[in-house]
Amino acid sequence: MADDKKLTTRDADFSAWYNEVVLRSELADYSPVKGCMVIRPNGYGIWERMQRQLDDMFKATGHQNAYFPLLIPESFLHKEAQHVEGFAPEAAVVTHGGGKKLEEPLIIRPTSETIIYTMFAKWVQSYRDLPILMNQWANVVRWEMRTRLFLRTTEFLWQEGHTAHVSEAEAEEEARKMLGVYRDFMEGWVAMPVVTGRKTDSERFAGALRTYSCEAMMQDNKALQAGTSHNLGQNFAKAFDLKFQAENGATEHAWNTSWGVSTRMVGGLVMTHGDDTGLRVPPLLAPIELVIVPIYRTPDEQTLVLEAAERIRKSLGDWDRREPARLRIHVDTREGMKPGAKYYEWELRGVPLRLEIGPRDLASNQGVLVRRDTREKRPVSLGILGEEVSDTLSRMQRDMLAAALDRREANSVRARIDYGAFKELMEGKGGFVYAGWCGDAACEAQIKDETKATIRCLPDEEFQSATKPTECLKCGRPSTVEALWARAY
Amino acid sequence: MADDKKLTTRDADFSAWYNEVVLRSELADYSPVKGCMVIRPNGYGIWERMQRQLDDMFKATGHQNAYFPLLIPESFLHKEAQHVEGFAPEAAVVTHGGGKKLEEPLIIRPTSETIIYTMFAKWVQSYRDLPILMNQWANVVRWEMRTRLFLRTTEFLWQEGHTAHVSEAEAEEEARKMLGVYRDFMEGWVAMPVVTGRKTDSERFAGALRTYSCEAMMQDNKALQAGTSHNLGQNFAKAFDLKFQAENGATEHAWNTSWGVSTRMVGGLVMTHGDDTGLRVPPLLAPIELVIVPIYRTPDEQTLVLEAAERIRKSLGDWDRREPARLRIHVDTREGMKPGAKYYEWELRGVPLRLEIGPRDLASNQGVLVRRDTREKRPVSLGILGEEVSDTLSRMQRDMLAAALDRREANSVRARIDYGAFKELMEGKGGFVYAGWCGDAACEAQIKDETKATIRCLPDEEFQSATKPTECLKCGRPSTVEALWARAY
Repeated sequence: MADDKKLTTRDADFSAWYNEVVLRSELADYSPVKGCMVIRPNGYGIWERMQRQLDDMFKATGHQNAYFPLLIPESFLHKEAQHVEGFAPEAAVVTHGGGKKLEEPLIIRPTSETIIYTMFAKWVQSYRDLPILMNQWANVVRWEMRTRLFLRTTEFLWQEGHTAHVSEAEAEEEARKMLGVYRDFMEGWVAMPVVTGRKTDSERFAGALRTYSCEAMMQDNKALQAGTSHNLGQNFAKAFDLKFQAENGATEHAWNTSWGVSTRMVGGLVMTHGDDTGLRVPPLLAPIELVIVPIYRTPDEQTLVLEAAERIRKSLGDWDRREPARLRIHVDTREGMKPGAKYYEWELRGVPLRLEIGPRDLASNQGVLVRRDTREKRPVSLGILGEEVSDTLSRMQRDMLAAALDRREANSVRARIDYGAFKELMEGKGGFVYAGWCGDAACEAQIKDETKATIRCLPDEEFQSATKPTECLKCGRPSTVEALWARAY
Repeated sequence: MADDKKLTTRDADFSAWYNEVVLRSELADYSPVKGCMVIRPNGYGIWERMQRQLDDMFKATGHQNAYFPLLIPESFLHKEAQHVEGFAPEAAVVTHGGGKKLEEPLIIRPTSETIIYTMFAKWVQSYRDLPILMNQWANVVRWEMRTRLFLRTTEFLWQEGHTAHVSEAEAEEEARKMLGVYRDFMEGWVAMPVVTGRKTDSERFAGALRTYSCEAMMQDNKALQAGTSHNLGQNFAKAFDLKFQAENGATEHAWNTSWGVSTRMVGGLVMTHGDDTGLRVPPLLAPIELVIVPIYRTPDEQTLVLEAAERIRKSLGDWDRREPARLRIHVDTREGMKPGAKYYEWELRGVPLRLEIGPRDLASNQGVLVRRDTREKRPVSLGILGEEVSDTLSRMQRDMLAAALDRREANSVRARIDYGAFKELMEGKGGFVYAGWCGDAACEAQIKDETKATIRCLPDEEFQSATKPTECLKCGRPSTVEALWARAY
């Protein structure tokens, strides 16, 4: 398993720290296929819990799952002008199948608008067939030059929601609603606070009318775009002939939305919560919530302590009948390994709670409960262990969100800042800067060019500053809108 | 939705019937991509329930999920001699990525032994690292010339288990155990009885030591291979350098197994349970278990009946607190559609139970409950509806398995049969024939050539005939083993 070498610290080299945490906590590994990673059980267990919860939230908002082909005729991409411009350069192309050259090359889906709206067009005749509210869990491929585990890989896993509506208002409501679902999930489950808002034209999804996103701040003060939701307008409906007969008899093009989050969120979790000891997983997403480490010297003690550990595992596993969510407990029974080495490893892997029990603890019917986030240690009576563990996990979940929120706000600048100071900040410790923008794409491009910072989003009202900015960060002309600036992954 | 034209009957044209049922019950649709289908929400809902249950069973037997790359360097396939022979002809080849020709072509995984055992080799040092028990839910691509919805498509969804062990005995035990899990699932959940046994050398998985399979009989008396489990021996471990230090200090190659089931099972479900009215879904896999069809004429009646339907949905949905498996109920509130048209549609879609309620029913606090499998109709007091529905669903699940088993046994021949009669049977109504085999691949090949029947498996003991066959079906020489012969999908 993990080797004993100390982790690089976040301060010393955040990027090296990130890779080490991902590899050594066995979330993922490099594969022999360029740009593709292997998601190991520790990482996949987190992703599975993300999937399960998101899937429940999608179903609760009326969506159904379906599955569309991996391979898409190259010509489909070309039907929507902006879309092909955005995705053709990243395409992986299948030219041969079954030993023969294909008549038309197929691309591996980078996203599925083209194939899905082709099918919608086949299924929709009248307004009665709308809305269609679908989601697909799938892998996609985008040829990337510089890849990072979880954050940017050639293949990644995601979900993509696709919907069709009778009106622009309904599509807009859907796009906003799903952005809200993402925010609820990221804050409630990943304990990762996000700023929501609209993308500028230059950062919009290729083919969308409007793109909304969730932007989180990582511990190096860079932004991570953790999820996007698009109002596609009628762009794809027109390109793929998705029409319906309206209630008034007229033939109209449908209005679409699409929205997606991916395994990138696992990277966001690491960079939001990890510390110099390793990973910290929010309890709701932890494949193991509590690890029990038995302590003993003699074979008699071993028998005694392992029996007690197993008894606890069974009773807590059933404790409060929260089906199917009984507490997820693991007893570390490995022999020939000191308790200290086990602590080290489980801390590296980010398991939220650890219970240490030895013969002396058992004699006084207690154990020592250790929180991974604060590393607080305290004796707990085994008689009330179930309540204690359950309460502590809930508290941790809240505390982790609060800590991440505090960190974000401490590294956000809302005061008026001149461009020189802004540039210095971006080249130094970074952070989120809320500042005025004249709305001119030239200013946006120049700032990006000179500072590597981009407009992450035009924040939604609740994230906007109490005092509205009055002038553009770059040109000093009157501001038309407040923008959130940051360097980003 | 479904059109009103009558389905082709099974007797008239089984194959046309199958396609019509799949398309009209909206399980799946053809896509514009040759050989690839779209799984629509009705079909995906069944697959999701299959996945959920299998996943629970895999976890209960100690397996963890992981995810490996979709794309595999072409050279990997060539490292195991039989494997490349089996899979290279079906490969989809990616030759270009990111606008450039690749140095080495990548193939889309047809199965993942090569990439997974490459990674296992990286992770395993000592016997302490074994066993590795992993599973992956994934899409795979095999270039198929003649495709059939669900049964044989270029892309399909499946799970593939991959394990590594210290000994042949342990690998053999694992391969057999997972075959048992498949059988339990297919009988308990799909209500589809299967014969388990070993494949002959000619039908073995490319690269395996031994292949075991589950063989089900469809209503046209053809066999469907519904799942396979392979003892891979050390073939892949040797090809991919998967070695470990044994407890005695020696360096040894690991022993592997792999096992998989796919969306093909949905096709098996259709051909096991469908009837001339459409689909019949076993209750445990049904996305909707009970559909409530309200009956009314006047607006007042409509209000009354819809309120009652909604009350029932809420109370039954919570009825016995089987979290998360409350009863899955849908109320068909569509207006402008006669109850009869709704019945027709829900029968086509195979929803297990229908509750009809009108004003007169409500006056006597009852409804009419209709079973999809037997089409039995009976009045049920609303006071005990929860118990009635729950009991009826359990009974249906058992009855559907029993009916399929009866049908299979009625179409199985265990008596001594001469080759002429066998040939006639295979060209006529078909069925399962248990007969002797001399063990010579030439006899097997000749029979296949002359009758299109193949040895589905060498059945496990419990499926073998009470009176062992004494001579080979083909050549008359002494039989060395009992074989199950049938035409197959």
